[in-house]
Amino acid sequence: MAKGINALIDMLADKADLLVCAPDGPRSGYACAFSATEPLTLNLIRREEHLQIWSCSGTPIDSVKLALDQFCKDRVPDMVIGGINHGDNASVNTHYSGTMGVTMEGCMKYIPSVAFSICDYSHSPDFEPLRPYVRFIVDKVLAEGLPRGVCLNVNFPLGTFKGVKICRMAHGTWYNECVKERHPRGYDYFWMVGAYRNDEPLAEDTDNWALTHGYVAITPTRIDVTAYQAMRELENWDFDFVNGSV
Amino acid sequence: MAKGINALIDMLADKADLLVCAPDGPRSGYACAFSATEPLTLNLIRREEHLQIWSCSGTPIDSVKLALDQFCKDRVPDMVIGGINHGDNASVNTHYSGTMGVTMEGCMKYIPSVAFSICDYSHSPDFEPLRPYVRFIVDKVLAEGLPRGVCLNVNFPLGTFKGVKICRMAHGTWYNECVKERHPRGYDYFWMVGAYRNDEPLAEDTDNWALTHGYVAITPTRIDVTAYQAMRELENWDFDFVNGSV
Repeated sequence: MAKGINALIDMLADKADLLVCAPDGPRSGYACAFSATEPLTLNLIRREEHLQIWSCSGTPIDSVKLALDQFCKDRVPDMVIGGINHGDNASVNTHYSGTMGVTMEGCMKYIPSVAFSICDYSHSPDFEPLRPYVRFIVDKVLAEGLPRGVCLNVNFPLGTFKGVKICRMAHGTWYNECVKERHPRGYDYFWMVGAYRNDEPLAEDTDNWALTHGYVAITPTRIDVTAYQAMRELENWDFDFVNGSV
Repeated sequence: MAKGINALIDMLADKADLLVCAPDGPRSGYACAFSATEPLTLNLIRREEHLQIWSCSGTPIDSVKLALDQFCKDRVPDMVIGGINHGDNASVNTHYSGTMGVTMEGCMKYIPSVAFSICDYSHSPDFEPLRPYVRFIVDKVLAEGLPRGVCLNVNFPLGTFKGVKICRMAHGTWYNECVKERHPRGYDYFWMVGAYRNDEPLAEDTDNWALTHGYVAITPTRIDVTAYQAMRELENWDFDFVNGSV
């Protein structure tokens, strides 16, 4: 099982009954994808008095949907937690992240939900420095809940933590995302890779700024993606012209 | 190729050079997923003077990333368009939709982007009534652009259109999402299905309301998912307690 999940279990085992349901292997970049057409299986990995661990053949969100549907009929969980992911899920990565997908799914089901990620892509990050932060945030959310439709995206920087910042999502862009290779059989194929650029590196209120300056970044994240400010502008579009005129 | 894509090509062929790059089969529920670990291929389906059609082995977003990276080095497209999807992408479906994934991807790359979907899950929806709306919206966006970080999620209802409404995303919930079946070899497996409930059926400013009442729903949708209102609340959390105390 993923080391980040084991770390979370270890950090939270004394606080609550834990139900773990996670994909049976890495699912990087799965976002909010669910399996609309594939049959799925669940396998019990471990069952103790206060801990159940299940492995799911599907996506991160499939795992949450299945766990809620199959194991939580009598009691809605107090929290849904995604992570701890190896690699940051700040800025636009929010949209690609399966860890955030899990967390958005919990939030869409009105369950207080938090994602934890660390800016360390190595096989074995040191999760230990995260422990007091994870425990503090989980305590807070269990005690006070979160506003309806809002979940937390928590990212930890590399190195020593200088403190915590409540952030907004930075505007950033992935570029050079595709590398073309030649298959021995003579056709081209592509790997998705890419580099990330923070498009507002001087903005100190962003998650990217916090992380590059050694701060833990907490970004409250919403399910409602309506661009309210743009609504008024669109209301000026004259759709009376539509009928037959274009 | 998907009928909704063919319909779009037919509706827009006189307006612009069209570059089509789409998955090689249905990709329902792929959201913003991209292929972080799988090699991808592109296959040319058709090339004419003002139209290129490519098929991609990956996700909807892979298709956009590959098309931009491989075919648009010299000229950024004027627009990215997702759809026309069979099935509505209103409310929380926004988060699961590959059609919206495509559109979010264009928007993340600062390209004006629009998703079109129709509330008709049949194999052969009648796309013809959408034509004037699609053409009007594309004209508008080409002429005026869209605010940075904002794309459009356009959903068409079943039946005759009463008009157009600029909407916010409804709060809604999927439930009963998993159906357990027994495999002939004696193990359980699951299909993801489910039913949808609009949790605010009386709110007339939502996409769900517009669609159930016969209106075309246009929801301006943002890339920045920061919950700004929640930021202040979180700033009251006292993280000084973190060091060693929990």
